[in-house]
Amino acid sequence: MTKPAITYSSSGVDLDAAQAHTSAISGLVRGGVTGFAGEVPLPEMTDPVVLAATDGVGTKLLLALEHGQVDGLGQDLVAMCVNDLVCAGAQPVAFLDYMAMGRLDPEQAPRIVRSIAAACEEAGCALVGGETAEMPGLYAAGHFDLAGFAIGAVERADLIGPHKVLVGDVVLGIPSSGLHSNGFSLVRRLLEAEALDVDPSVLLEPTRLYVADVLRLLGAGVEVHAAAHITGGGLPENLPRALADGMRAVLTADSWSTPEAIAAVLASERVDAEDAWRTFNMGLGMCLVMPEAAVERATELVPDARIVGAVEAGERGVSLA
Amino acid sequence: MTKPAITYSSSGVDLDAAQAHTSAISGLVRGGVTGFAGEVPLPEMTDPVVLAATDGVGTKLLLALEHGQVDGLGQDLVAMCVNDLVCAGAQPVAFLDYMAMGRLDPEQAPRIVRSIAAACEEAGCALVGGETAEMPGLYAAGHFDLAGFAIGAVERADLIGPHKVLVGDVVLGIPSSGLHSNGFSLVRRLLEAEALDVDPSVLLEPTRLYVADVLRLLGAGVEVHAAAHITGGGLPENLPRALADGMRAVLTADSWSTPEAIAAVLASERVDAEDAWRTFNMGLGMCLVMPEAAVERATELVPDARIVGAVEAGERGVSLA
Repeated sequence: MTKPAITYSSSGVDLDAAQAHTSAISGLVRGGVTGFAGEVPLPEMTDPVVLAATDGVGTKLLLALEHGQVDGLGQDLVAMCVNDLVCAGAQPVAFLDYMAMGRLDPEQAPRIVRSIAAACEEAGCALVGGETAEMPGLYAAGHFDLAGFAIGAVERADLIGPHKVLVGDVVLGIPSSGLHSNGFSLVRRLLEAEALDVDPSVLLEPTRLYVADVLRLLGAGVEVHAAAHITGGGLPENLPRALADGMRAVLTADSWSTPEAIAAVLASERVDAEDAWRTFNMGLGMCLVMPEAAVERATELVPDARIVGAVEAGERGVSLA
Repeated sequence: MTKPAITYSSSGVDLDAAQAHTSAISGLVRGGVTGFAGEVPLPEMTDPVVLAATDGVGTKLLLALEHGQVDGLGQDLVAMCVNDLVCAGAQPVAFLDYMAMGRLDPEQAPRIVRSIAAACEEAGCALVGGETAEMPGLYAAGHFDLAGFAIGAVERADLIGPHKVLVGDVVLGIPSSGLHSNGFSLVRRLLEAEALDVDPSVLLEPTRLYVADVLRLLGAGVEVHAAAHITGGGLPENLPRALADGMRAVLTADSWSTPEAIAAVLASERVDAEDAWRTFNMGLGMCLVMPEAAVERATELVPDARIVGAVEAGERGVSLA
């Protein structure tokens, strides 16, 4: 060769760092029957419905990076996916993560995977695989992105959803832990405008995992008809997905409390109420639809759940009364 | 309000564009039993092993963007995942994509999803879900990232892998279509150094899908013992994952041909042969391990497959003879 060699390492991809990362996380990822894919540990079921969901954590990631508080992102990532699965009554069984960055940070990357593994344990699913990609030129120094992928299973007879919902059912709201993982592009603009008087750690509170709550109810035979995970698009976009055509959820204003992070956004007086309503969970991260008769037992098992509204006949949607 | 309102739209997230995108791709994503997660269409099996794999397309994405040739990326994404699944003998059944970008391009984003859907169809799996995330501040204008998640299933008795491989088996190589989706950080450096005399479309040739090839062999009863998808790390890192301890693959130099893209990299004289060997697939995107007696039938069914080596006793690894 007459000119200096261009190596994979000099191209910005550090295979040794990748190897070190793989070693650091090896105990966290469950081994499988094959070296190329992860095994999904399906429970024994008569007629299983297998479900899959994918999501990311949005620009909450940038705020977490700005404040050096990335450890909650694993729970955010897992929660965004598994909370979707329990809306069908499914038990999450497996999780995979995709993490991409400009250059692998051998301290930060395993921290993220550890936080993912801890949240998987809490959600009762196995971390069965993942991909860590170095993509110099796509991500700025220190930046990364995360995508999660969760698989769950439920007996077909136990599926919950719009098909079970009846006019006259009530909506039981379970509080959110704060902003969860939506609306952060708006939140970051408010922070830039110095319009937000709140500690960043309050904004970064990890997304609540609702798996244990919902499965505890279902396991105890509480008649949960449907569930809605309230994410991007807020209550108006997500709650109707738990309703059938010709049904409308009418929520009672002030029947639930507003978490500090969302209160701070509203107090900024820079966000229109309608825009907030269509962006944030407003304090309800999970809504369950059930007969009123089931509520007493439900609130024994999930003490912070509250009746927040009812299902009425009408155009599919949500309104506030 | 005394100051102008900050809306979700003015924060760089365009919900109308997101809605338009969702409409544009709605026919491509299979509907499920629930509004929050996709249903994985599992085939009827006696004792199914369900497998999952995740991957991205690496910085091939940046080269594709630079040349306005993003339509092959869907096949790259799907192939990177489903080729891993068939290494266990599994039929891919479902796929989900995660696409993140700074600002949703209503022309480009559906193009990517269409290319993913087309590759899913070729691989025989259903596109059951996906996430399209706008993340202003993380991705530069026009940039995006892609992650894919695939789920497959195989009867436990039909699993292939290292447990079936015997010393004396041969390695049957199936040609790659070029670079596939690995080594592009190095390739882009070569292009920057003007060391690469090749048309970009040759470099961007989509990753070959090996699902039909491998499943055709298994379906015809050809005794495939194990398979290795040759991705990042090249033959030395991937082929041993199809071997058991105490086995070594000895490949015969010049027993397969080098695709134009990889030949161009080698001809640049800026890449060390050892580095190339550990970075690129070198022309073999899929290696199958099988008894020599099975080769005749195998090459009838996959005409471009060739014997490229054999399994010998020795330290687990790969060497070139």
